[in-house]
Amino acid sequence: MAAGKRIGVDLGGMSVKIGVVSEDNQIVERVTLPMNRNKPFKEAVKEIAEAVLAMGAVASVGFGIPSTLIPGSQVIIHANNLGWKHCDIRKELKKYMGETPVYLANDADCAAVGELIHGAAKKVKSCLMLTLGTGIGGSYIHNGKLFLGGNGIGLEPGHMVIHDHGKPCSCGKIGCLETYASATSLMEEAERSNSPVLQRMISENQGRPNAKMVFDASAMNDPAANLILEEYIRHLAIGISNLIAVFGPERVVIGGGVSAAGDQLFIPLQKAVYKMVDEPELVGCPDIVPAILGNDAGIIGAAMLDKVMM
Amino acid sequence: MAAGKRIGVDLGGMSVKIGVVSEDNQIVERVTLPMNRNKPFKEAVKEIAEAVLAMGAVASVGFGIPSTLIPGSQVIIHANNLGWKHCDIRKELKKYMGETPVYLANDADCAAVGELIHGAAKKVKSCLMLTLGTGIGGSYIHNGKLFLGGNGIGLEPGHMVIHDHGKPCSCGKIGCLETYASATSLMEEAERSNSPVLQRMISENQGRPNAKMVFDASAMNDPAANLILEEYIRHLAIGISNLIAVFGPERVVIGGGVSAAGDQLFIPLQKAVYKMVDEPELVGCPDIVPAILGNDAGIIGAAMLDKVMM
Repeated sequence: MAAGKRIGVDLGGMSVKIGVVSEDNQIVERVTLPMNRNKPFKEAVKEIAEAVLAMGAVASVGFGIPSTLIPGSQVIIHANNLGWKHCDIRKELKKYMGETPVYLANDADCAAVGELIHGAAKKVKSCLMLTLGTGIGGSYIHNGKLFLGGNGIGLEPGHMVIHDHGKPCSCGKIGCLETYASATSLMEEAERSNSPVLQRMISENQGRPNAKMVFDASAMNDPAANLILEEYIRHLAIGISNLIAVFGPERVVIGGGVSAAGDQLFIPLQKAVYKMVDEPELVGCPDIVPAILGNDAGIIGAAMLDKVMM
Repeated sequence: MAAGKRIGVDLGGMSVKIGVVSEDNQIVERVTLPMNRNKPFKEAVKEIAEAVLAMGAVASVGFGIPSTLIPGSQVIIHANNLGWKHCDIRKELKKYMGETPVYLANDADCAAVGELIHGAAKKVKSCLMLTLGTGIGGSYIHNGKLFLGGNGIGLEPGHMVIHDHGKPCSCGKIGCLETYASATSLMEEAERSNSPVLQRMISENQGRPNAKMVFDASAMNDPAANLILEEYIRHLAIGISNLIAVFGPERVVIGGGVSAAGDQLFIPLQKAVYKMVDEPELVGCPDIVPAILGNDAGIIGAAMLDKVMM
């Protein structure tokens, strides 16, 4: 590998986080650029490239992209948060970075790689990571390598159907996992609930519900919140056990704000998953743990992409 | 590889099919032994080993086993059809076959390997095979290698939940794919139906319903059979698209008796799956095709196991 810094870039709709990652997987330098949907693609890439080059000699740079990438060409299909559609970021970067090795992957995949290499799945050979946010992102690491499936685009676990007569999903299907187990779905249940405890929390927060309120109300033993949480965990356990039935990971890492709920989420979730997997006493049941790197996972994972591509 | 014959063994509850497989993947010699649940494990293995050795010099022998195998040791967990529980077939075979290389895999995985190497998925790099029978077996081939997941036990797609308030499954969960899309479930729907057409077919068959009757009655435009078939295909399409969302295979191969239904199954199934996958116009939709090797797939796949283990 050429001498120089190993850089990871986490591209988001609000900001671009750039970090220099050391040999022992620490972020040793950081820059954050503002970003917004109105910035044209070419202008944004120029700014990012200049910020990267300003950090010194670059050995390699990895990007976590909030979009599916076309297999092979790695053209961005549609980064909705950035307003980028069918953009060839590798080609555009080349104008500024020449022959510097550039690695691209989906941002959720980068976060999973970060957790694998330096976070909650360190020293684990196979792990599934689910990020519970607006939707549900997911990645699977197989024998230390990022698994992107036969078509090379990675997982879409949020759109696995778990209740075929259930709630309509924004994708057009019915009963997708993310309509039941995303952070958004938990927030919507809080909003829909007629629990006085939840209603007070929402009104005290300027009418804005969030997922954390359900955990807080349940900790106060509010019956409605208990029920919402129970159903949320049951659905999440179904999604996880469906994925265990095909991937058999050694560990499951949960990312996204919901994972901050700690034991209140993880103890009943682990119990529910154990009940749903096949022959847990013989083949084991993966342990389910929260992600630990937070926003750093994406930067670290992006910088490490060269090590984990299958 | 040592000189000698490459042998595949397909172990079933009624019979053991043994075949010599040529370099060009043809079965050039066959022996079938009767089998039943009352034959003790050690006695059965002795008979099989003797039959294999009687075929001449053996280079390698692969076994398709109707059970999950414990990763690493490959001890049979529970071959229900054979009445074998916690049996170490490799150790037992060694008594008769000495150092001859022995490969073991689940029988459904062997069939998938056979279809990949010489059947419906020939020249395809990644394929998902589903076998619709009493339950639903499944295997995924990734870049020409058999994918057994992080825990090494392979897929259990039949127990992915697709309808969490649906029918109870024999496994104890609710709404597993195989309660809706196995051949058994189709047969049960035929039995349950009050369609006079289906009822006549059943009574003409000594009161025994089967899955084919639904296709036959639907071909006669029986409204009840049409509805059963429509629902069956919808559920199967949900299961397949859930699996496409995680594996992204290039092709999906359907095995088991139901796959003999031809266009009546495959045309509406392909259409339904196309509607359910993400961005088919951009990332493509796998073609869904019937298995073509029938019972030979298991023998051919077992003989080829040395080539496809990941």
